[in-house]
Parts: sequence; structure tokens; C-alpha cells
Amino acid sequence: MQASALQNKFERIRANKWFEIFVVSVIVVSALLVGAKTYELPNGMVSLTVFLDWFISAFFLTEISIRFLAEKRKLHFFKSFWNWFDTLIVVISLIPADDAELALIARLVRVFRVLRMISIIPELRILLVSLVKALPQLGYVMLLMFIIFYIYAAVGSTLFENINPVLWGDITISMLTLFRVMTFEDWTDVMYETQEEYPLSWIYYLTFIFFTAFAFLNMVIGIVVNVMERENEKARAEKQAELLAELKAQGNVEPTLRDVMAELNDIKARLNRSE
Amino acid sequence: MQASALQNKFERIRANKWFEIFVVSVIVVSALLVGAKTYELPNGMVSLTVFLDWFISAFFLTEISIRFLAEKRKLHFFKSFWNWFDTLIVVISLIPADDAELALIARLVRVFRVLRMISIIPELRILLVSLVKALPQLGYVMLLMFIIFYIYAAVGSTLFENINPVLWGDITISMLTLFRVMTFEDWTDVMYETQEEYPLSWIYYLTFIFFTAFAFLNMVIGIVVNVMERENEKARAEKQAELLAELKAQGNVEPTLRDVMAELNDIKARLNRSE
Amino acid sequence: MQASALQNKFERIRANKWFEIFVVSVIVVSALLVGAKTYELPNGMVSLTVFLDWFISAFFLTEISIRFLAEKRKLHFFKSFWNWFDTLIVVISLIPADDAELALIARLVRVFRVLRMISIIPELRILLVSLVKALPQLGYVMLLMFIIFYIYAAVGSTLFENINPVLWGDITISMLTLFRVMTFEDWTDVMYETQEEYPLSWIYYLTFIFFTAFAFLNMVIGIVVNVMERENEKARAEKQAELLAELKAQGNVEPTLRDVMAELNDIKARLNRSE
Amino acid sequence: MQASALQNKFERIRANKWFEIFVVSVIVVSALLVGAKTYELPNGMVSLTVFLDWFISAFFLTEISIRFLAEKRKLHFFKSFWNWFDTLIVVISLIPADDAELALIARLVRVFRVLRMISIIPELRILLVSLVKALPQLGYVMLLMFIIFYIYAAVGSTLFENINPVLWGDITISMLTLFRVMTFEDWTDVMYETQEEYPLSWIYYLTFIFFTAFAFLNMVIGIVVNVMERENEKARAEKQAELLAELKAQGNVEPTLRDVMAELNDIKARLNRSE
Repeated sequence: MQASALQNKFERIRANKWFEIFVVSVIVVSALLVGAKTYELPNGMVSLTVFLDWFISAFFLTEISIRFLAEKRKLHFFKSFWNWFDTLIVVISLIPADDAELALIARLVRVFRVLRMISIIPELRILLVSLVKALPQLGYVMLLMFIIFYIYAAVGSTLFENINPVLWGDITISMLTLFRVMTFEDWTDVMYETQEEYPLSWIYYLTFIFFTAFAFLNMVIGIVVNVMERENEKARAEKQAELLAELKAQGNVEPTLRDVMAELNDIKARLNRSE
Repeated sequence: MQASALQNKFERIRANKWFEIFVVSVIVVSALLVGAKTYELPNGMVSLTVFLDWFISAFFLTEISIRFLAEKRKLHFFKSFWNWFDTLIVVISLIPADDAELALIARLVRVFRVLRMISIIPELRILLVSLVKALPQLGYVMLLMFIIFYIYAAVGSTLFENINPVLWGDITISMLTLFRVMTFEDWTDVMYETQEEYPLSWIYYLTFIFFTAFAFLNMVIGIVVNVMERENEKARAEKQAELLAELKAQGNVEPTLRDVMAELNDIKARLNRSE
Repeated sequence: MQASALQNKFERIRANKWFEIFVVSVIVVSALLVGAKTYELPNGMVSLTVFLDWFISAFFLTEISIRFLAEKRKLHFFKSFWNWFDTLIVVISLIPADDAELALIARLVRVFRVLRMISIIPELRILLVSLVKALPQLGYVMLLMFIIFYIYAAVGSTLFENINPVLWGDITISMLTLFRVMTFEDWTDVMYETQEEYPLSWIYYLTFIFFTAFAFLNMVIGIVVNVMERENEKARAEKQAELLAELKAQGNVEPTLRDVMAELNDIKARLNRSE
Repeated sequence: MQASALQNKFERIRANKWFEIFVVSVIVVSALLVGAKTYELPNGMVSLTVFLDWFISAFFLTEISIRFLAEKRKLHFFKSFWNWFDTLIVVISLIPADDAELALIARLVRVFRVLRMISIIPELRILLVSLVKALPQLGYVMLLMFIIFYIYAAVGSTLFENINPVLWGDITISMLTLFRVMTFEDWTDVMYETQEEYPLSWIYYLTFIFFTAFAFLNMVIGIVVNVMERENEKARAEKQAELLAELKAQGNVEPTLRDVMAELNDIKARLNRSE
């Protein structure tokens, strides 16, 4: 009985508007703190950041505990991806870091607390989910692109390894070099170097650019068509809902040609009878 | 009575076509003057530019006064953003500048008189307003992009500060460097430098490029879908207006199936009676 | 009478399929000749190119004369843009060039004979015309873009002239530098240079990139929406044509609800009479 | 009779699911092997790769033989492009290579075995076919682009050959340089060099960028419109199929206004008779 009373209290806290605003404020402060630490700070400020770090950690722990305790069925809590996400970030940032090596990692982990900005704002969550959902549909185009990269990287590291091992040493490095070519980043420097030994190697680069550009274009069109379809679907659903609402407002359904025919047949039957 | 006569006169001036053409001409001349001053000019021309500067300032002041006085309700004048915009430009460019420091600022302010080109041409005003209106709809995508930039900049300035403080000194500089990477501007130079200490740092750059490209694509699609919807809305509105016009031309409304049913019921009622 | 017979003969030549193929072949040869001349050729080949040059000039003159003489009303010939275009190219390439200076110009003029490829292939002509037609609709966006460039160039050459006169010397050079920034071509080099004196000048570059990217996006969307509308228009026209054809095939028109109402009123009138 | 029994057996092997999975696995292993060879491998691994190479060659030969023998009409086998494709890759990679020169070629040929990934996955095959099918529709835009490149390259190698023969030596090299300009890769370096002799040569570069960007934009729009139309076509076909299915489910057809009119005429005829 007492547990339930406590839970209700936690639920009220979680639903409280001021509590929500305070949580967002703390997240924003933690983000600013991460940025502030990259500047050289006076001594007084450094001790403030240490205090704030502990305060934020403690606050996040409290907040997630309240959210957990406010849940009626505790297992439900772990069904939400975002709860896992928040818990993970909070727990990791609690690990103490005295070592110099670990201090760096601890600092990096605190950067990821900024990601709570996404989990706390519903619109950003929707945006991220829709981005992730769009990915698998592009699966085969991305596989095709990977195969193109792989074949060109294999050819490149076979032919050009002796010319410049820094760029064409093995297949991984070659793929990185090809990504550089794809972004047009000083790609002619790479080409002019290999052209000295293989004058026709411009064919290699131009076909690569052509293939990847084409596959990339296909990817973009895939996304656009996808988005358009979703929009059309939404528009159609809205139209139908509108139509249904209108029908309900009228309290009856629009007569169809079928009804007209039924009426006419009825009249004819009467005429037959009256004859 | 006299004030009203004067106002009518100003209103007539403002509505005069030749006056409008003259205003546009003066704005074009002021724009050309701004450009001409960046060249080295012979002495005679310099005194001409000084004269023209004063003439344009005086003319703009006169023009804005006429527009203000022509307004019937003086408060209405300040309800238009473009009136504020014009007044501000004109007033600022009146500030005398003898000092060397101020001379530079005065010269810069005169550059912004070219912006009056936008306020005087209605099509450009519409264009600008529609650009500004499209921005808030992209709000969340831009927030997401800012968060991506912020997190990567925080990680970058934590890990790479010792490698190159010019590029990764603090979070602001890091964000500028990341914008450079996003535009593919010599981004491999930045990467090769950090790869010497952290050979796996290509993951940092590639994921960043991937995330920002994806968010950017989403932004573009957002605008495109938005524009399409507006166009469709417009097309639908036009179609309905056309339909209404046609109905009016016919002088009556098209009968519906509901009317046919009413008629049939009427006929049946008669048949019943006649039986 | 004889003139008319001659004209008929010319008309037959112009309409002859083999004549057309021969014309295209000569144009292709003239294009190849232009390319061949950029290589170092053996002596025998050089005299061949000289001969071919004269042959092509003579042939083009003959061809255009035939086309002119085949025209019934001579004035009609000059109403077509493409006839003007062809005549101009042919006439200019006839100018003798012995001088070294003129030889270069003569060589350049012959390059433009390749443009006859466009005037001879109808599909390319349509493509070019549609490109040109799309331009004026973009007029205001391009004007806006020019104003953005102009203002930024004026500010740039005012502030940065002393830092690097090669890049920011006057407003023309500054606009070229800004175009370079817009294509992201080593734009950070330009920025880092000015940042040494004005550390906040990154605002100048980032806002410029933002504004031009936005205006450019608007331009692209403008073209896309435009193309879409044209396509939709075409689709609608096709649909209507199809509908009309179907109606004609049926030999009569589909009855409307109006006709049904008229019939019902007729029946009612009869019932009234029969009562 | 026995041959037919053997064929049935081969057919069963080909249709076997485990056989298919094994084929895909071998292709993946052959792809990994190609990648692995670009790294420096310990001696034991090298002999393993030699063994694997022979095993893969033998397996591919067996697999293609089974597919050939499983075909009922042997000529049908060669009607499929993908069978030709697979056979070619397998046969070429069988050529023994002891020579150093040939060893390189043999290694390159084995890279192309990765392409069997495309022929074995139906989705990738469809993707590739649709890419290839989209090309001819772009034919005229690509021809126009080639003409633009050709004319600019001819002008470039005529004017700039003496300035930098490495970039403007002949028309082929000039076209490569122009492709570099089109990708904005250090294009200002190319321009600044020629501007020293011809200060107005920025017109050459800017018009070139403008024309190619415009033609390219047209190409992209062409593809997008094309894809959209295909999608619309598909949507319309689906809708009609749906409608037909619904009609079949109702077991009869919806009455039309024409039927209503026929009924009314019938009623009138009766009324006439009854009068």
C-alpha cells in the first residue's frame, strides 16, 4: 500500500511540467559544460565544472530512478529503446576516472550526455527513427555501392601499390582513397601520380566516378520516391477521414446509382401492377 | 484642411509612375557607386562620388519622408517591416563619418543601401519572405544537425587538440573545421594529420560525413515536399475557383443524385395517390 | 518559269535523305578535324587538313545556298533563328586569315562549326530551346543571387583589400573570389588568410555560403516544379484527348444527371396529365 | 534415357537450397580472398590462398557445368546475358599465369569474380538492369554535354596550349582538364594560370561551369521525372487491379447513367402505352 503511494508520488513528479523543464535545463547545462571544458578555464571555473559534473551525474541518476519507479510494470521500462539509451549513458558516466587514460574516456562519455537532447525532445526522436527506418530500403543500393568500391579498391591496390603505398597499400586504405576520389577531394593529384606509370589510368577514375555518382543518384531518388509515397499515403488517408467525417455530419449516406436503379425498378413494378 | 491637401499631394507623388522609376534609378546608381568606389578612381571622380553620396542620402531621406507623410494613419507606416527596413538604412547612412575608423563603417553602411533593391522590387520581397517562411519548418532538422556538429566538435577538440590546436583548439574552432570537412574542402589533409596519432580516426570523419549528409538530404527533401504541397494546394484552389466560375456562368447548380432520388420519391408518391 | 524549275530541284535536293546524311557526315568530319588539329600532325596530314578545311567551307556555303534557294519566300529563310545561326558560322569561317593573330581567330571560328551539330539534330535543338526558355522564369532568383554576390563583394573588397589585393582588389575580382568560395574551392585558404586580421570573418563566409546555397536550392526547386507542372499539363492533355477520342468512338455523349432530371420532369408532367 | 535421368539430377542440384547457399558462400570467400591478397601475408597463408584459388576456379567450373547441363534446351542457356557473363569470368580465370606480366592480369581477372555477387543476387541484377535501361533516355543530353566539352576543349587547347601543355596539350587532355574543372577540383589554380596571359579567361571557365551544370541538372531532372512516371504508372495499374478485383467480388457491374436513362425511357414507353 505504501509502495503504491510512493509510486503515485513519483508518477506525479514525472508528469509535472516544471520537472520536465528542469530536466531539459540540466541537459542543456551539461551540453554547455562539455563545450566550456574545451576552452582554457581559470582555476575557479575548473572547480565549478567538477561540482557541476557531479551534480549532473547525481541529477540524471535521480531522474532515471524516478522514471523507473514511476513505471507500474517494471519490465515495461526496459521495452523502450530510449530508456535503455538513457540508462546506459547515465550508468557509464558514473564510472570513476582517476587515471589519465581513463580521464579522457570519462570526458568523452560525458560528451554523449548531449545525446539525451535527442531522447528528451519527441520531434528529434521521430526524426531519428524515420532516418533509421529509411536505411534498410536502401540496402541493395548500398550493397551495390560496396561491391563497386571493393572491386575498384582491389584493382587499385593491385596496380598502384608500388606507386604510392600510402594511398594504395591494401584494400582498406584503397577504399578510403576511393572515398576521397568520390568526394572530389584533390582527386586529380591521386590520378596524375598514377598516370605517370599508367597513362590510361584516367579511365579507372572516370568510370569509378561515373558508377558511384550513378549509384548515389539512385539512392537519393530512392529516398525521394519513398518520402513522396509516404506523403501521398498520408494525404489520401486524410482525405478519406475528411469524407467519413462529412458523411457522419450528414447523418446518412449519399445515394448511389444503384439506389436510383432500385427505385426505378420499384416504379416499374408499380406501373406493371397498375396496368 | 491644409495638411490634408498636402497629404493628398504626397500621395499623388508616391503613386506617380515616373517618381517610382526615378527611385529605382537612384537605388541602381547608389549600387553602382558602391561598386565604383572599390576601384582606384581619378581625383575628379572622387569628388563626384562624394557629391553623389550626399545627393543619394538626401534623396532617400526625401523619399521616405514623402512615403511617411502620404500615409493617412502615421502608425500604419511602422506596421510594415519594409518601411522599418528602409528607414533604418536611410537613417544609419546619414551618420557623419570623419574619423578613419568610422569612415570604414560608413562605407559598409552605404553598401547595405543596395538592399533597398529588394525592398523596392515586389517579386524579390515575395521571394525573400517565402525563404524566411520556409526556415522554421526546418527547425528540428537544423537542431539535429547542430547537435551532431556539437558532439563531434566536443569529441574532436578532446582527442585532437594536442595534434593541431589551430584546427581543434576549442569547440568553436572545431565546429568550423567540421564545417570545412562537410564541404569536402581539403578534408583528407585534416584526416591524414590525425590518422598519424589515431589510425582509426577515419571512422570519426566518415561517420560525420555520413550523418551530416543524411541530415542535409532530409532538409532538402523537407523543403521539396513543402514546396510540392504548396504547389498542389495552389492547383487545387485554382481548380475549385474554376469550377465555381463555371457554375456561376451556368446560372444554376448541377443536380446531384440526391435530387434525382427526391424526384423519384415524388413520382412514387404520385403513383401511390393515383392507385 | 525556269527559276521555279531550279527552285524545285533545290527543294528536292534539300529533302533528299542521302543529302542530309552527307551533311551530317561533313559536320562530324569538321568536328574531328578541329580535334585533330590540336595534336602534332605529320606534314602530309597538315596539307590534308588544309584541303579539308577549304572543302568543308565550300560545302557549307553550297549547302546553305541550296537551303536558301529552296525557300519559296526568301524572307522566310531569315525568320528562323537556326538559319541565321548557320549562315553566321559559315560566313565568318570564310574570312581569309594569313596573319598570325588572325590565324588564331580563324581557328577558333572553325571550332564553332561543331555547333552546327546542334542546329542539324532536331532533338538537340529542342533541348537547347527548352533550356533557354527555362531561364527567364528563374530571372528573379538570379537577380537576388546577383544582389547577394554584389553586397558581399562590396563588403569584401572594402574590408579585405589590404590583406590580399589579388583576391579582393576590386568588386569584379571579389565576385570571382566569392564564386570560388561558393564552389568550395580552397575556400578555407581564403578564410584563414582574412581571419588573421579579422578573427570573426568566418561569419562573412558562412553567411555567404548559407545565403547562396539557399538561393541556389530555390533555383533548382523552381526548375523541378516547373518541369513537373509541364509534365502534369502534358499528362492531363493526353487524358482529355483520350476521353474525347473515346466519346467520338461511341458516336454520342454520355448522359449527365441533368438529362436524368429532364427525363424525370417529363415523366412527372405526363403523370400530371394522366391524373 | 540415361542422359535425361542425369539432367534431372542436375536440375535437382541446381534447385537445391543448400547448393545455392554454398555457391553464394564460395563467391563471398573468393571476394574476401581478393581482398586478403592485397595485405602482406605470412607464408602459410600464401599457400592457403593458392589452394583456395584453385578450389574456387574448379568449383565455379563445376557449378556452371551443372547449370548448363541442367538446362533442357542447351541453346536457351546462351540466351541469358548473365550466363554469358558468368561463363566468361570463369573461363578467363582458368587461364594459367606463370609469367610475371600475366600474373598481374590473372590477379585482376580474379577480382572480377566479385562481380558474380551481382549475377547471383536477383535484386542487384534488377538494379543494374534498371540503371542500364535509364541510360539511352539520357542519350541526347549526354550528346549535348559531349559537344559542350568538345568545343570548350578545342578552344582551350588552341588558346592555352603554350601556357601549360600538361593541362591543355591536345583535345583529349583538355577534356580531362575540363572534367576536373567541372568537379571544382582546384579549378581556380587552372584559371589563375591562364588569367596571367588572358585576364578575361574567367569568362571561359564560368560559362563552361554554367553550361555543364545546367546540362547536368537537366540530366538529373530527366531521370527523376522518368522515375516518377514509372512510379505513377505502377500506382495507376495497382488501382485498376484493385477496382477490377472489387467488381469481381461484387459479382456484377456498377450501373451507369446510361442504364438509368434506358430505364427511364422504358418507363416513359409504358406510360405512353397506358395512356
